[in-house]
Amino acid sequence: MQDSWIMTMQTVSQNKAHGGIQGVYKHLSRETKTDMTFSVFVPAHPDGATLPVVWYLSGLTCTHANVTEKGEFRQACTELGLIFVAPDTSPRGPDVPGDPANAYDFGLGAGFYVDATQEPFAKNYRMWSYVTDELPSFVAEHFPVDVKRQSILGHSMGGHGALTVALRNPDRYRAASAFAPIVAPSQVPWGNKALGGYLGDNKAAWCKHDTVALIEDGARFSDFLVDYGDADQFLTEQLRPELLQAACAKANIPLTLRRQNGYDHSYYFISTFMADHLRWHAERLKA
Amino acid sequence: MQDSWIMTMQTVSQNKAHGGIQGVYKHLSRETKTDMTFSVFVPAHPDGATLPVVWYLSGLTCTHANVTEKGEFRQACTELGLIFVAPDTSPRGPDVPGDPANAYDFGLGAGFYVDATQEPFAKNYRMWSYVTDELPSFVAEHFPVDVKRQSILGHSMGGHGALTVALRNPDRYRAASAFAPIVAPSQVPWGNKALGGYLGDNKAAWCKHDTVALIEDGARFSDFLVDYGDADQFLTEQLRPELLQAACAKANIPLTLRRQNGYDHSYYFISTFMADHLRWHAERLKA
Repeated sequence: MQDSWIMTMQTVSQNKAHGGIQGVYKHLSRETKTDMTFSVFVPAHPDGATLPVVWYLSGLTCTHANVTEKGEFRQACTELGLIFVAPDTSPRGPDVPGDPANAYDFGLGAGFYVDATQEPFAKNYRMWSYVTDELPSFVAEHFPVDVKRQSILGHSMGGHGALTVALRNPDRYRAASAFAPIVAPSQVPWGNKALGGYLGDNKAAWCKHDTVALIEDGARFSDFLVDYGDADQFLTEQLRPELLQAACAKANIPLTLRRQNGYDHSYYFISTFMADHLRWHAERLKA
Repeated sequence: MQDSWIMTMQTVSQNKAHGGIQGVYKHLSRETKTDMTFSVFVPAHPDGATLPVVWYLSGLTCTHANVTEKGEFRQACTELGLIFVAPDTSPRGPDVPGDPANAYDFGLGAGFYVDATQEPFAKNYRMWSYVTDELPSFVAEHFPVDVKRQSILGHSMGGHGALTVALRNPDRYRAASAFAPIVAPSQVPWGNKALGGYLGDNKAAWCKHDTVALIEDGARFSDFLVDYGDADQFLTEQLRPELLQAACAKANIPLTLRRQNGYDHSYYFISTFMADHLRWHAERLKA
């Protein structure tokens, strides 16, 4: 009986879009001990077919809604036959602790895709297990996904999430890409604050949540696509794509790193290159 | 000196997107006596070139932001070389009267693209003059538009606006289309409330703001494209596309009226067919 509750899914909304169904759903999460909301786009498909699934992890301050409304992914998903899933970025609710200063970069909306070990966050902030284990199983139960064909991408904090998830699960994800990712959280202010807050001061625990450190420690992935804008206000202090470039070069991981002239950190940037990323994913998902 | 203030434009934001610049701007309007915010997308273009301009009028409750964030128009505008302008739907500000009951369908966010004659609305609610006269002149002063190549489209209340503006200015607009428009406001609850509130009880004054009545009264336009979803919750009571179909048939106005299976009234519907509409406009703007 204990597991039966996790199978209950509440439909928040469903709208037809680009020939498919854009849904928003809610379930009580075993990992976060809260209701979690996520969105799923399922393109039109033959009865009984299963489709590859692309996971999109969002950045600081976001919920599932930002990419769902502004991401411009549906037309490409319909053309390519891809399911697109967007989880929330943290647990939420009246009993969930956040940053006492209500910071945008820690606590609510800023789970950083780790399982917290520090109090008072350890009970609810289990986003690593949520996005790599609980939600994939839940989505596979409720949607026509081909679990052998999964890929992952993300933006900023979610780019960090996507790259670390891929590097630690290279057999599960056939493609990984990122928009303006945090690539070395141990070396930048956002990451120091978040990893310190969730995982404590022992930096050894941070390495498995740091893309550059994972690669230096031997983790490998087939290849990455990363776009960033050269007008991104977070580029030099928080993102530092040159650290990823150096690590991939040393490890012989093929990296397509594109510097996009004039683009910033917003969804105007993401939506511009979303279809490119989905085509990259589709090539690898269907190979 | 009197007109010099109207030429002042404040840039609220500019973001590079799909190769062009998505801007949001603000100016003090001579018509509404308030600050008015609008968005303009300008695709990449050769120095010194001027481009056709597409006007988009939004529906109830919207500002410029809804279509700007959710409309998925930028990729098509870049491909087709179109400037896309989205005004607000009403005057706003602490001194602007709205509906005392804070209704979503009258007052703020619901200007219905008329010049109000009734108090207390007559001073500020001059959206007809704003979208057909003041803003076009203002945009022509500040952006590289070819004023000889303009077209107009809109959604719901804004579809009503687009069709009535086109019918009364057939020489200025080379194309007109709508998503789920109100076509006969004199015959439906939304229209009765709004036209009565802004224009008074004399229904003779309503006719020039009623698409079906304008056509019956002899107004003509080259052709229209109209999409609506058959899952639109406002279809049978407020939108009534069959009235437009009958009026156009009788008047020999070519109407491409498409019933889209399963679509509702939301931006998920609009964004799905936006590129179709822009291609329709581009064919006529470039003919």
